[in-house]
Amino acid sequence: MFRSYAQTPPKGWNSWDSFGASVTESEVLGNAEMMAKSLKDYGWEYVVVDIQWYEPRADSCAYHPFTELRQDNYSRLIPAENRFPSSRGGQGFKPLADAVHGMGLNFGIHIMRGIPRQAVHNNTKIWGTQKTARDIADENSICPWNTDMYGVDASKEGAQAYYDSLLALYADWGVDFLKVDDIADSKLYGTHTGEIELIRKAIDGCGRPMVLSLSPGPAPIEFGTFFQRHANMWRLTDDLWDNWNQLYDMFGRCGKWSAFVGSGTWPDCDMLPLGHIGTRTVADGSEARMTRFTKDEQRSLMTLWSIFRSPLMFGGDLRKLDDWTRSLLTDPYLIDAHQNGRDAREVYRKDDLVIWVSESDARKYVACFNLSDDPARLPESVEGWLRTIGGDLHEVWENRTVSIADVETAFIAPHGVVLYVSK
Amino acid sequence: MFRSYAQTPPKGWNSWDSFGASVTESEVLGNAEMMAKSLKDYGWEYVVVDIQWYEPRADSCAYHPFTELRQDNYSRLIPAENRFPSSRGGQGFKPLADAVHGMGLNFGIHIMRGIPRQAVHNNTKIWGTQKTARDIADENSICPWNTDMYGVDASKEGAQAYYDSLLALYADWGVDFLKVDDIADSKLYGTHTGEIELIRKAIDGCGRPMVLSLSPGPAPIEFGTFFQRHANMWRLTDDLWDNWNQLYDMFGRCGKWSAFVGSGTWPDCDMLPLGHIGTRTVADGSEARMTRFTKDEQRSLMTLWSIFRSPLMFGGDLRKLDDWTRSLLTDPYLIDAHQNGRDAREVYRKDDLVIWVSESDARKYVACFNLSDDPARLPESVEGWLRTIGGDLHEVWENRTVSIADVETAFIAPHGVVLYVSK
Amino acid sequence: MFRSYAQTPPKGWNSWDSFGASVTESEVLGNAEMMAKSLKDYGWEYVVVDIQWYEPRADSCAYHPFTELRQDNYSRLIPAENRFPSSRGGQGFKPLADAVHGMGLNFGIHIMRGIPRQAVHNNTKIWGTQKTARDIADENSICPWNTDMYGVDASKEGAQAYYDSLLALYADWGVDFLKVDDIADSKLYGTHTGEIELIRKAIDGCGRPMVLSLSPGPAPIEFGTFFQRHANMWRLTDDLWDNWNQLYDMFGRCGKWSAFVGSGTWPDCDMLPLGHIGTRTVADGSEARMTRFTKDEQRSLMTLWSIFRSPLMFGGDLRKLDDWTRSLLTDPYLIDAHQNGRDAREVYRKDDLVIWVSESDARKYVACFNLSDDPARLPESVEGWLRTIGGDLHEVWENRTVSIADVETAFIAPHGVVLYVSK
Amino acid sequence: MFRSYAQTPPKGWNSWDSFGASVTESEVLGNAEMMAKSLKDYGWEYVVVDIQWYEPRADSCAYHPFTELRQDNYSRLIPAENRFPSSRGGQGFKPLADAVHGMGLNFGIHIMRGIPRQAVHNNTKIWGTQKTARDIADENSICPWNTDMYGVDASKEGAQAYYDSLLALYADWGVDFLKVDDIADSKLYGTHTGEIELIRKAIDGCGRPMVLSLSPGPAPIEFGTFFQRHANMWRLTDDLWDNWNQLYDMFGRCGKWSAFVGSGTWPDCDMLPLGHIGTRTVADGSEARMTRFTKDEQRSLMTLWSIFRSPLMFGGDLRKLDDWTRSLLTDPYLIDAHQNGRDAREVYRKDDLVIWVSESDARKYVACFNLSDDPARLPESVEGWLRTIGGDLHEVWENRTVSIADVETAFIAPHGVVLYVSK
Repeated sequence: MFRSYAQTPPKGWNSWDSFGASVTESEVLGNAEMMAKSLKDYGWEYVVVDIQWYEPRADSCAYHPFTELRQDNYSRLIPAENRFPSSRGGQGFKPLADAVHGMGLNFGIHIMRGIPRQAVHNNTKIWGTQKTARDIADENSICPWNTDMYGVDASKEGAQAYYDSLLALYADWGVDFLKVDDIADSKLYGTHTGEIELIRKAIDGCGRPMVLSLSPGPAPIEFGTFFQRHANMWRLTDDLWDNWNQLYDMFGRCGKWSAFVGSGTWPDCDMLPLGHIGTRTVADGSEARMTRFTKDEQRSLMTLWSIFRSPLMFGGDLRKLDDWTRSLLTDPYLIDAHQNGRDAREVYRKDDLVIWVSESDARKYVACFNLSDDPARLPESVEGWLRTIGGDLHEVWENRTVSIADVETAFIAPHGVVLYVSK
Repeated sequence: MFRSYAQTPPKGWNSWDSFGASVTESEVLGNAEMMAKSLKDYGWEYVVVDIQWYEPRADSCAYHPFTELRQDNYSRLIPAENRFPSSRGGQGFKPLADAVHGMGLNFGIHIMRGIPRQAVHNNTKIWGTQKTARDIADENSICPWNTDMYGVDASKEGAQAYYDSLLALYADWGVDFLKVDDIADSKLYGTHTGEIELIRKAIDGCGRPMVLSLSPGPAPIEFGTFFQRHANMWRLTDDLWDNWNQLYDMFGRCGKWSAFVGSGTWPDCDMLPLGHIGTRTVADGSEARMTRFTKDEQRSLMTLWSIFRSPLMFGGDLRKLDDWTRSLLTDPYLIDAHQNGRDAREVYRKDDLVIWVSESDARKYVACFNLSDDPARLPESVEGWLRTIGGDLHEVWENRTVSIADVETAFIAPHGVVLYVSK
Repeated sequence: MFRSYAQTPPKGWNSWDSFGASVTESEVLGNAEMMAKSLKDYGWEYVVVDIQWYEPRADSCAYHPFTELRQDNYSRLIPAENRFPSSRGGQGFKPLADAVHGMGLNFGIHIMRGIPRQAVHNNTKIWGTQKTARDIADENSICPWNTDMYGVDASKEGAQAYYDSLLALYADWGVDFLKVDDIADSKLYGTHTGEIELIRKAIDGCGRPMVLSLSPGPAPIEFGTFFQRHANMWRLTDDLWDNWNQLYDMFGRCGKWSAFVGSGTWPDCDMLPLGHIGTRTVADGSEARMTRFTKDEQRSLMTLWSIFRSPLMFGGDLRKLDDWTRSLLTDPYLIDAHQNGRDAREVYRKDDLVIWVSESDARKYVACFNLSDDPARLPESVEGWLRTIGGDLHEVWENRTVSIADVETAFIAPHGVVLYVSK
Repeated sequence: MFRSYAQTPPKGWNSWDSFGASVTESEVLGNAEMMAKSLKDYGWEYVVVDIQWYEPRADSCAYHPFTELRQDNYSRLIPAENRFPSSRGGQGFKPLADAVHGMGLNFGIHIMRGIPRQAVHNNTKIWGTQKTARDIADENSICPWNTDMYGVDASKEGAQAYYDSLLALYADWGVDFLKVDDIADSKLYGTHTGEIELIRKAIDGCGRPMVLSLSPGPAPIEFGTFFQRHANMWRLTDDLWDNWNQLYDMFGRCGKWSAFVGSGTWPDCDMLPLGHIGTRTVADGSEARMTRFTKDEQRSLMTLWSIFRSPLMFGGDLRKLDDWTRSLLTDPYLIDAHQNGRDAREVYRKDDLVIWVSESDARKYVACFNLSDDPARLPESVEGWLRTIGGDLHEVWENRTVSIADVETAFIAPHGVVLYVSK
């Protein structure tokens, strides 16, 4: 309804959870190859290079305040050649995007809203206008956690031209997915609606469909319809890591945002910190590791993300993908709920028991989550929902057929989930 | 999806805009008769007695603080016999509801959440439990603008029994529509989720379908999905009267709430202060009058309410319904958009020009509103939306056929609207 | 400067910490006798009966919602005769006040702001006016934690007359100290300035000096000068109990409020939960006990209260006063700082070390507190302050003479204090 | 009490109200000369160069975003030689300060908190440390209305060294008064306590007494004692201009802040926009003009500032000082109240009538202000305060003797004041 692309929630891989600000071309290609080989048939398609690809010295998830960035003659950041060798000679991300496209996949990048501070202080040019970087920078607009950019003042002449010039470059590179950061909730200033409008217009005018993803969250729900109108996905939280408290918290957020899920507009629960993560990122104080989520927690996460229809951006290193994790990403029931579900919503929440329902053309879904730290029986009211499914039920995670009578005596593991579907 | 009733937005009449807290039985019957005769064929069906029907001395929209109320032996308020003679002998609203039903219409009442303070201080009984009024009253829960009730503490034993006893009585009377006040936004405490849950459960258990309407607004949007789950309609604002500033403001509210409009769940723009209003209500400082809205404003109001799919509760005295006002309530295009529309949403807002689009199985709708005080041309971007309608367009309010080229030179009146539909 | 009484910070005893809402006449008299015998010579003078003396059923610190209260014919609460036998025959607190006065002490009571709800619902009379209880009650004014009263609307005719009638009664009884509750920070509505003004005027007109104490806190500092103008003391916190976190927190509050300490106006750190407390009060979940504060914490508390010049209202049962506790209440240095200090203020705070200074005509004071959980050396900057004292120093709590050089190697106990004074 | 200097509220001249960001050396000298000649005998002593003296292109009160600033080799801003010719050859403000000192006056400058952004992006040195500008800049600290500086992170090594190096330079120049901006209320971040502490320490260590003035307001009253401890004056509002609404508003602010007025610590009502102002500043949208305040308003302003004991910094061009304005600055009664008053405070405020009282060793003061737009009688309660003065009264502004009986029939002009003093 809102756009002709991203009609179902996007699925892909993002470099942040494993490599922070420091991913290299070979790592991107290695992950893309694994996606093409192992996940593409299940609908996984986007390969996204996250923040700081323009910084030569980036070496972890930490930023280097006020450091020099790679930039072209028109105030546009370009890949650091030492990290992305194929970008040499002014080719930007085009060679890498071509390679990804060659695998039958799509290519995405992350940008910070705004214009480089170094461009403003050096007062460099903007392509397609007589205005310069200093003319369009917003005098009161920084990112509180990264010193690379100044915001752009949408009311100034040259502001749209600047974003148009960015999108022209990205379209030329072959970018299919654009994650813009410091914009959905900027911490210091709230939501930057002006720059979101500039970017929307620049994408619509660039001649290439490009999924627009807005970060970080929590995006304010008062702007829910604004996000629907301008973006394909927007974040519900700040960065998610592999700890239970954050996952617990996501249930409340999904419960509130379900009304905004729809064709082309996807509230975003953030990346999946599953499999092997943290190779060079320590954003939450941890190190290289297999996800700290228990298997029950992983099932709960995947069930919630899928039934809610969040975008799914895998954060682990696909080159190290194990069978268990792969099974989570390829389960046919979850895929059906995720790609074809409708009217998904929380219908019950009490005493840390949560029920979600959904349905596709193929079947109906009833998921019952136990958010407590102890095993728990299902709430009585689940029976009414199970009856809407009908006679025999299939429970997905145990992979067995059960009757409604069986459910009365069933337990849900701590932090776990049971997912009933019609047979 | 959320309930089996109120699948389309409810339409009816409510006594507040004309009679404040003081409506009488004969006035209700008079309005019901006019509805049956003149509007029923257009889908108008609910006849709702607003606040304070249990107060013998009520004479305007003003309340009498701490005054005595009519009550049965079980702490339940009953109609004041001097105002509702048919209720004599303990019959309550049953005779009046029967009369309304006899006209082929449905009957509704307004209640304040909670239990009468007089019941608490006198510690009277509650039907169906050993607990008394004093046992279930919330020690910290009043309405800041009306002294009739204390809130009920949902955590106390007897609380559900009390609401069950209320709904049993209302079901027995034949109530089809229940407007609960001081609950969606209580000013002093926010949204009373606990009492909403009690009421939902009591309705579901009372054996009679009953539309649940929650007041007053602004209902907080963070509770949007909570309202969807528990109610059929909930208010977006405090009381709406016939002044432009409030109507202007509604555009922003509808823009934010469009994602929550759906089958059985209706964000509510409040009653229509149209036709002859204010007979015995001075809530906004005015007197008996024809609505102060200009015709252009009335067209804008009806177009917005209809395309957004707000419930439509007429506030004027139907016994004085004039042809112009009646035409607003019976327009076939508005009725189609209102009853059959889908995906309605604001797609443009800038410089006080607002565009909404919707579509039904029968046709597509593009409404362009001019919220400024001067005539205005349509924004350029309207053309893209008109092209989605296709070749020839019908403009509803001028009732003529136009081409897209005509639109370029068209003007919208101040506070006015043009509504294009496919032919 | 602000009033001719309470020129130094008041000192006395209050029944709450030991007896909650349920103190009896004999307990009051017993404590008064002990005060007269043991503390009067050290400036202790007020004996204050705290909340709910008008409720016959009171038996702990818990309230009985909506219960009946003892009241005269003019909507004024009077003592429950079962608890205060001397009040029989309409004598009110006069006999008890006489007895206290007879011991050379002063008598105080606690009231809730407002007018009894039972008076409003029964619409009883007000002395000295044709207006009734219902006429002056504020329609939107309750206490969120006690159901006895409605607030009085200062804009209504009869409101001042009501408070005048209360003060006339209290003056007749011989009340010297009036603690008014639910007024300095009402939780639900902020500070009730209107009723504070009514009470100030009523006291000024009643013909008897009466210390005015406002509760609970935290009183908002934006109203600091308002409190100075209208009251003698006002609370900086909600109820203080014998746990370290609350005491820790008081340092920040005193630091902010020191500018408001002055002749007749005393920011109030709340009662001293020292000695034997909790006989019939469980407000913080505990039972009858000796204070849970360690001796170091008690020294810190007494030093802070004294140097800051908070009112000192002892909360323990004086009939069980032990020597240690008594020594805290009679220390000559603390008494001098408390009664004669000037320009007291925090001059240092870092890493949980806090320095306060003060001076009287007799001597200078430097107190250094260690709020951490480990022993700590004094901060370097203390030396500058000690040098303002001069050569030899007396340390109060260790009771010995030290040199500035000694201080360099001194430690302060966890939660403890050293207090240096000039010899 | 708090410092050995600024024992009475400072008085002087500041360049902002007349010259904005663009004052020149000759203008400063011209104003200093007039002060020496005409006001010095009345206690006026500080000559303060306001913001942007390091910017060569400054030409009004507007800032030039991201423009180049004059800076020494150690990241310290220095005067623009084109505007301050005597600063040539690296002499800084020393020659100008010498000239001002030569007239028997004191010299002051304005600075923005923080370190120049150009120093950070160029990563220049800091005097006295190996750390560089980039090392100490706070990654999230800008001024929302001026792009010159980044904040300094007090937790970083080198931060104190940087401020020490600034103060060493200013002490060397001979600065007597330091106005630091973007620090008392930074709009974006609240009060910058960390940098205030750095500056306090740097002043205390620089070997020269220097009055510390913190801007802009409104300084939060919760930090009142913090300001007392660290500064000599701090602003109660954002910039004050010559319009009644701002002056009206100041009465409420003074009423709240009176408890913080004391020896060495002065809540600051901002500069006096009197006489001829606006030569090259258009901060409030106006032009060169005589103050727009009426004479009554000017009397009210001078009476409030004097009795409250605000610092007095004249904003008009002293070279154009007229007799009327001069009379306001030299009135002996105001000077006495301002320099010698004590216990000044608002004692009454109702219906736009406000009474302040104060007293010096010499006499008592009762000022009654009429903030309404109509002439008004004095409130009854003024009599009690007049009686504290005693028999015969002198009214300052009408310059005549009156009796208390006369006062009963007196009127105060709209926006005007009567000021009674003991004879």
